[in-house]
Amino acid sequence: MAGRQERDGDGATPPEHPTITFSPSAEFPPLNETELAALHQVGRRWRTDLRDQPPRDARLPLDPSLEQYRHRPAPSRFHRLGRIEMFRTEQHGQLTATGSTSTTGTRLGRATGRVRRALLGPPLASAAVLQERMRKLVALPVLSSDLLSSVAYGPEAMLAILVLAGSGALGLSLPIAAALVVLMITVGASYRQTVYAYPHGAGSYLVASDSLGPRFGLTAAAGLILDYVLTVSVSVAAGLQAITSALPALTPFTVPLGLLVIAALLAGNLRGVRAAGKIFATPTYLFIAAILLLFAVGVVRAAERGFSPVPPPTVGAVEGLGLLVVLRAFASGATSMTGIEAVSNAVPVFKPVEWRQARTTLTWMIALLVVLFAGLTILIHLNGLVPRADETLLSQLAHRTFPHGPWYALIQATTAMVLLLAANTAFNDLPRLLFFMARDGYAPRRFLHLGDRLALSNGLVALAGAAALVFVAFGGYTQSLIPLYAVGVFLAFTLSQSGMVMHWRHHRERGWRRRAALNAFGALLSALVLVTAAITKFVAGAWVAVLAVPLLVLFCRHIRSHYDAMRQALALPPAVAEAHQSSGQGGGRARAPEPDTGQAAPGTAGGPDWQVAPGTAGGPDSAEGSEEARPNQVRETSGPGDLRVDLTPGEVRHLVVVPVARLNLAALRALAYATSLGQPTFAVHLSPEQEEADRFRRQWETWGDHLRLETIISPYRTVIGPLAQYVEALHSVRPEVTLTVVVPEIVVRHLWHHLLHTRTELRLRRALRDVPGVVITSVPVHLPE
Amino acid sequence: MAGRQERDGDGATPPEHPTITFSPSAEFPPLNETELAALHQVGRRWRTDLRDQPPRDARLPLDPSLEQYRHRPAPSRFHRLGRIEMFRTEQHGQLTATGSTSTTGTRLGRATGRVRRALLGPPLASAAVLQERMRKLVALPVLSSDLLSSVAYGPEAMLAILVLAGSGALGLSLPIAAALVVLMITVGASYRQTVYAYPHGAGSYLVASDSLGPRFGLTAAAGLILDYVLTVSVSVAAGLQAITSALPALTPFTVPLGLLVIAALLAGNLRGVRAAGKIFATPTYLFIAAILLLFAVGVVRAAERGFSPVPPPTVGAVEGLGLLVVLRAFASGATSMTGIEAVSNAVPVFKPVEWRQARTTLTWMIALLVVLFAGLTILIHLNGLVPRADETLLSQLAHRTFPHGPWYALIQATTAMVLLLAANTAFNDLPRLLFFMARDGYAPRRFLHLGDRLALSNGLVALAGAAALVFVAFGGYTQSLIPLYAVGVFLAFTLSQSGMVMHWRHHRERGWRRRAALNAFGALLSALVLVTAAITKFVAGAWVAVLAVPLLVLFCRHIRSHYDAMRQALALPPAVAEAHQSSGQGGGRARAPEPDTGQAAPGTAGGPDWQVAPGTAGGPDSAEGSEEARPNQVRETSGPGDLRVDLTPGEVRHLVVVPVARLNLAALRALAYATSLGQPTFAVHLSPEQEEADRFRRQWETWGDHLRLETIISPYRTVIGPLAQYVEALHSVRPEVTLTVVVPEIVVRHLWHHLLHTRTELRLRRALRDVPGVVITSVPVHLPE
Repeated sequence: MAGRQERDGDGATPPEHPTITFSPSAEFPPLNETELAALHQVGRRWRTDLRDQPPRDARLPLDPSLEQYRHRPAPSRFHRLGRIEMFRTEQHGQLTATGSTSTTGTRLGRATGRVRRALLGPPLASAAVLQERMRKLVALPVLSSDLLSSVAYGPEAMLAILVLAGSGALGLSLPIAAALVVLMITVGASYRQTVYAYPHGAGSYLVASDSLGPRFGLTAAAGLILDYVLTVSVSVAAGLQAITSALPALTPFTVPLGLLVIAALLAGNLRGVRAAGKIFATPTYLFIAAILLLFAVGVVRAAERGFSPVPPPTVGAVEGLGLLVVLRAFASGATSMTGIEAVSNAVPVFKPVEWRQARTTLTWMIALLVVLFAGLTILIHLNGLVPRADETLLSQLAHRTFPHGPWYALIQATTAMVLLLAANTAFNDLPRLLFFMARDGYAPRRFLHLGDRLALSNGLVALAGAAALVFVAFGGYTQSLIPLYAVGVFLAFTLSQSGMVMHWRHHRERGWRRRAALNAFGALLSALVLVTAAITKFVAGAWVAVLAVPLLVLFCRHIRSHYDAMRQALALPPAVAEAHQSSGQGGGRARAPEPDTGQAAPGTAGGPDWQVAPGTAGGPDSAEGSEEARPNQVRETSGPGDLRVDLTPGEVRHLVVVPVARLNLAALRALAYATSLGQPTFAVHLSPEQEEADRFRRQWETWGDHLRLETIISPYRTVIGPLAQYVEALHSVRPEVTLTVVVPEIVVRHLWHHLLHTRTELRLRRALRDVPGVVITSVPVHLPE
Repeated sequence: MAGRQERDGDGATPPEHPTITFSPSAEFPPLNETELAALHQVGRRWRTDLRDQPPRDARLPLDPSLEQYRHRPAPSRFHRLGRIEMFRTEQHGQLTATGSTSTTGTRLGRATGRVRRALLGPPLASAAVLQERMRKLVALPVLSSDLLSSVAYGPEAMLAILVLAGSGALGLSLPIAAALVVLMITVGASYRQTVYAYPHGAGSYLVASDSLGPRFGLTAAAGLILDYVLTVSVSVAAGLQAITSALPALTPFTVPLGLLVIAALLAGNLRGVRAAGKIFATPTYLFIAAILLLFAVGVVRAAERGFSPVPPPTVGAVEGLGLLVVLRAFASGATSMTGIEAVSNAVPVFKPVEWRQARTTLTWMIALLVVLFAGLTILIHLNGLVPRADETLLSQLAHRTFPHGPWYALIQATTAMVLLLAANTAFNDLPRLLFFMARDGYAPRRFLHLGDRLALSNGLVALAGAAALVFVAFGGYTQSLIPLYAVGVFLAFTLSQSGMVMHWRHHRERGWRRRAALNAFGALLSALVLVTAAITKFVAGAWVAVLAVPLLVLFCRHIRSHYDAMRQALALPPAVAEAHQSSGQGGGRARAPEPDTGQAAPGTAGGPDWQVAPGTAGGPDSAEGSEEARPNQVRETSGPGDLRVDLTPGEVRHLVVVPVARLNLAALRALAYATSLGQPTFAVHLSPEQEEADRFRRQWETWGDHLRLETIISPYRTVIGPLAQYVEALHSVRPEVTLTVVVPEIVVRHLWHHLLHTRTELRLRRALRDVPGVVITSVPVHLPE
């Protein structure tokens, strides 16, 4: 093996590509040059705004680094000491969270944390990423269970088509199997080249995106997503069928058992890569050993008969033998190849040198596949077996080969095991695929998150959820879905290998023609299978795949466009006019694309147009009203919501509104909090009747009338509507003012206590969510019981 | 009738009681003297705190009364003009919301508002309360459908027990019916007295609470709640059964049809009292007319036979005839009286003079009940009818009386209608009962809310929900629940009339002995029925009531204790030491009950113990650290959550924390917002790895390092846990500081877009909800699409 590696790689390391790892920092993409420049520029405006402020840290009432509090007891909510111990200090006062901070402090959070830890083990630090890599001997079973298990149904699927043309057609199985072996070796060799060319992750999505463009990459990804979800459901169903046919009493529990298996697979994978490898290695090796034993004995038996095939029982032809039947048999047999892609996506989880280890593993997998597939097909032919509805071919073969003894049971048991574990390959692969897609913005960003066991937890959970849904929807009888996923798999193969052809053409390294030719041949064969499968099985279910793939692609592109819009909306304005810095007033507006129209010099346009009520001294401050004359224009141009203002403290103009229902402790705390911010503040009271409004105003005067009080009569007794629309009206007359609504939030101990409270805070927040420029501040009030 | 009224009331108005009306202000109970005094005192401390501030309204950037903006177009979110028109000005700048503000401005809110208006009609202003009162002719059918409809099954229930002792025992029906008539007249007369004594609402709950104490009142209320919920389910089921026996094709749709009927009843009642009256008046009058017609013809037929009873068919005895059977028959017949209570709770919805109108209506109801019940029993006896499983007695009687023609159908149809409408009495009564209970704190306060059609909407919805639940749970076959509610009803009767006895004893007006004796007799008879029903029907289902009533009482008391605890927690400290005013520093703590221990003079206890990092000028302000030496003590004594501080602006000590993940527009807006508040502010960044932390710090420095930045490494890659616990740690080292966490909240257009965002704001809010003294401020960022 080593020699071949050297030859392929010409002794050199593979070509350079941008490093792609499952780094936890993937969630925090760095800023580019333009963004940094914009940031710097905004920062200069801040300097102007903060000119007259005291030094940065002067007024902080505590040391945010917690340095001073670390070595003495600090009180906690639960009267325990040592809350600070949850953070360690590394170099230069750097805080580091300890494992105990993974859970939130709520009772539910802590309970969940305990269960989680018991099931999945303690959290793993990011530094452990390398330790979580796989050796070849672990990777082989983890990544190959899908591929190898499919030989349990691949030959049968092929023969089941051939037998439609009568038992005479069964003889064709050998040439078709030979063609399939060629296909396997071609595709395998192709993928070996792919791993070499894309050493940081060589899945169809990556390769097709890179070489053919994102549209093709997404198409391949959609095919694979479909394939993986179906693989899990179908494998679990197949494994359970093997069990329930041995223990029929379990049949009524198929659905709960299946969900249990899916949950177990999920838990195993959430534990992390190495742990999953340990759990899953033995059954796969046992299966390989069992099948090889079957061969050995079968060959010996056949040798005793002089290798003359037993004639199969006569079966009448249902259809004529034609090219179509042969093609269908070929396409059906090709389902044995599902799972071949597993290694290529998984390159980054191998121990270094990753690509080398991955390639060797791939070679071994292909070799095992060819041996098992060809061996089984030949033995079936020699024994003259015919597909039957009530017993699988593998079971028939095992029965024939081992009429007595425990061997039959061993083969059936390991087959069931490996079929169940085949689902595990999808668990290994799909989260990685989603990670790559999320990195490009085609899948939700949460798929970038490395869970606390360094697994891509969100992808695992999504896969388990989708597979469970399919499993339940089909009541655990998912065999009819098998034709569906040939389409997805071979779509990915075809695109990946076409991509490789383009790759070689583009790079034109030494020997590129040979490599391109190999990939082109692989692409051609894959495309042949794809077209055959899509056409011949269209009615049987392939139409779902033909429909679902473009829909998934559209969906992914929609996600991407949402993220693009968000990034654009959240981008800092690229080039702010330098002139702004000299103003130094902060009343100006700094919408970057139109540096002049957006900035009326403060106090110019007409001056204040609201005169204060007589009796109160002083006028409104000078900066106000600058936008008043053309509010509509401002509204029209503010395309991306309210993102046009307020990038520096000087630009924020405050007005604090405190809705007050009753003058109790909660209301006074909210009023005190709001007033203590030192910004213009007033209170608003909503009253169902004039009498109540008057009564409230008298209470307000008893208190001292320290703030302006606005009472609104709500004759229809609704609360949220008028309040929200009042705030909206305030916003609409002065869109440039940032309204802060300060609401006391009643925090209850028990969930059902929510029934006893009107939850005004929550409902107001919801109603005001759409209004730009309205900040909601919840002042929590904790009820004792 | 008028003459009797005069005699009962002795021509005078009834005794004075505190006015109880369904006023919309009930949701805003006034402050008592102690609270006002405390409010005044807190207000004086505010004056000290605000001494150096500019005048109250001086800095407001706009006129909160919107006065100035009313008569010119203002822009709105939807580019429509005239948002301000949603508020009208009454006298002295009083804002009044118009009907269009009932709905919130969101798309969903507006759509819901339209549907609601179409179904329920436009909102009614509070001033329309009087117009929504009922005349007698409307009140009679609305309030009596339950009572009168029960004659459709009451006599049958009685005979069904008697026939168990053989057909010979059926002759006892006449004396038992006579006893029941006595019971009806007694209870009716008792309630007439109750309405007179409690002219503002005379339900069992109110009477028993007032005279016997809240525990008895709650017991009566629990019985009635049970009764009302069952009444709705059972009536709807009975009505539907009458329909489905005529149109068997509808039988499989019993459950959806029942839900539809309940929904229709709910909608009709949500439209309001008068509207409901209009809908429900005709069927009840038709039913009365139909039954009276049946009597007339039946009596004529019997006269033709010379009033000699037809001998009933011989039925064998199942049990011996004893006192028990007679008592059970009596108790079963008494179910005819369910619904008699309806008027007494509803006194306030009559037109003035309320109690007079209510009493007349009650008299008419009782008279009709006696006539219908006695008449039916006699006719059944004369016709020698026996209860049969397949046909109701009423139906048999109608068949016998009208062998031909449409009359039989008319009687069946009106019976079905009135049975369906019987549920409506519960819809009229239960929300009022819940209103009274909520006013006393024994039910959720939302039952106080008058909906926009002046109905007690929340009570209506709760009743419909509970009844629908029972209906669905029993699959629409709820007849077995009938024995259940005799217990609830007669429990309420007994308590209410015992309460009246105590009432007369207490007040000793002229003629009180006579009145007390009548009520005592009623109480005795009711108690007799109650005990009989509870014992004889214990196994048949009465045990549920026997169990449910105490549980409901416990539940109500729990609600009350929650509200009590809340009121106590939210009450202003009653007597603040005057000494506090002279301090004027604001650093002091003012937990009133311990005026000295709570107030350390600022700056005394040890002084600042955190030295600012070298290189930054200035120290922490002088007031800090005063609580540092004894944080545990402070924590221990702060019983009711965090309600001990921050009642005046000077007491609030701020620290603003801004979690920043990435330096984009959203983060800078949050930073600008936080900084512009002018309070001590710093930022915190959570990083999965040291490299990312360093990179972020470089970006921070590019921006200008305007705020202190604390980076926390989260090696387990969790976000919410470490952030929440960091904030908690900050809180624990300085519990007296109010932490404001400023988080940008991404607002998306479509709900499913939430999947694409991590919703840190929401999760952080949840995690921090339990930490006292932490205020969360959401700065919304609206995404364009």
